[in-house]
Amino acid sequence: MSLSMYQASAPRFAHTLKNLSAILGKAQAHAAAKKIDEQVLTSARLYPDMFALARQVQIACDTAKGAVARLAGVEIPKHEDTEKTFDELKERIAKTLAFIATVQAAKIDGSGEKDIALKLQGKDVTVKGMPYLLGRAWPNFYFHVTTAYNILRHNGVELGKGDFIGTP
Amino acid sequence: MSLSMYQASAPRFAHTLKNLSAILGKAQAHAAAKKIDEQVLTSARLYPDMFALARQVQIACDTAKGAVARLAGVEIPKHEDTEKTFDELKERIAKTLAFIATVQAAKIDGSGEKDIALKLQGKDVTVKGMPYLLGRAWPNFYFHVTTAYNILRHNGVELGKGDFIGTP
Repeated sequence: MSLSMYQASAPRFAHTLKNLSAILGKAQAHAAAKKIDEQVLTSARLYPDMFALARQVQIACDTAKGAVARLAGVEIPKHEDTEKTFDELKERIAKTLAFIATVQAAKIDGSGEKDIALKLQGKDVTVKGMPYLLGRAWPNFYFHVTTAYNILRHNGVELGKGDFIGTP
Repeated sequence: MSLSMYQASAPRFAHTLKNLSAILGKAQAHAAAKKIDEQVLTSARLYPDMFALARQVQIACDTAKGAVARLAGVEIPKHEDTEKTFDELKERIAKTLAFIATVQAAKIDGSGEKDIALKLQGKDVTVKGMPYLLGRAWPNFYFHVTTAYNILRHNGVELGKGDFIGTP
C-alpha cells in the first residue's frame, strides 16, 4: 500500500500542531506558577540572530497552512503576526487547525506531481508537490516546532519527548 | 499519484543525514578556527537533563536506520555509541548512510500496512508501517537533527536554515 498525499500531510500537520498547543499550555502554566511574565518566554531565543519563540510558532503554523493550501490549490489564509502571549499563540494554532480541517482529502490526493509555485530567497521557483511536501514542508515544519520546544526546555519548562510526539 | 513508502523514507532520511554531516563539518571548522576543544561542542546541551550534541546525532542515526530496517524487514545494524569527536560523528553518519543504501526500494514499498514491533517505554507495542513512519520516525528524526543544529547555533556556530534543508 502506498501513502496518499493527504495522509502524509493535513492530518499529520494537525496532530503536531495540537501537540504544540499543549506544549504552550504547559509553558503558560509554568510561567503562572513561577510568576514569570509570559513575554519573557514568548520573546526568548537560543541565539541573538535566531527567531524568538512566538515567531517559531508563527512559522510552524504558516508552513502547515501553506503546504495544505498549495497542495489543495486553494488560497492561503492570511494571519497577521501579532501574537505576544500564550493565549494568542494558541489561538493562532487554533485558526490554522480550523483552516486545515476545511480542506478535503480529495483536493490534496493526487497533488504529488502538481506544480507548486514558491518564492525562495526572493526567487520564483516551481517544484513538484511530492518533493515540496517531503523535502521542504516537513523538515521546515518540524524544525520550527522542535525549536519552539527547545527554547522552552532551555528556559526550564518541564517537557518531554512525549509532549512532542503525542499519541500518533 | 501517491507516495511510495520508499520515497517517503530511505532517500529522505539519507538526504537530511548528509546535511547533518555537512553541519558537523562546519562546526568542526569553527572549533578549529577558534581553538575550541571539539568535545566542548560535542558534549554541549541546551539544558542539564537534555541530551548532548553527540547523543542527538546518534539518536538521529538510530531513528533513520531503525525505520529503514523495520520497514524493510531486515536486521537493524548495531552501532556502538562511542563517538566523541566530529570525525567520529561524521563516520557514524557515513555508516548509517551506507546501510540505508543497501536497502532496495522493493523491500520497503508495500510496508504501510505491515506490523512493526517497537519497544516504547519498556512496553512491547505493534504499530502499522504507515503511522510508524509518519507519526513516530519522522518527527523523532527531525527532532534530533534540529536539536543538534540548535545546540550548535546556541554555541555560536554560523549556520542557516539552508544548511538544514539543503537542496531537496
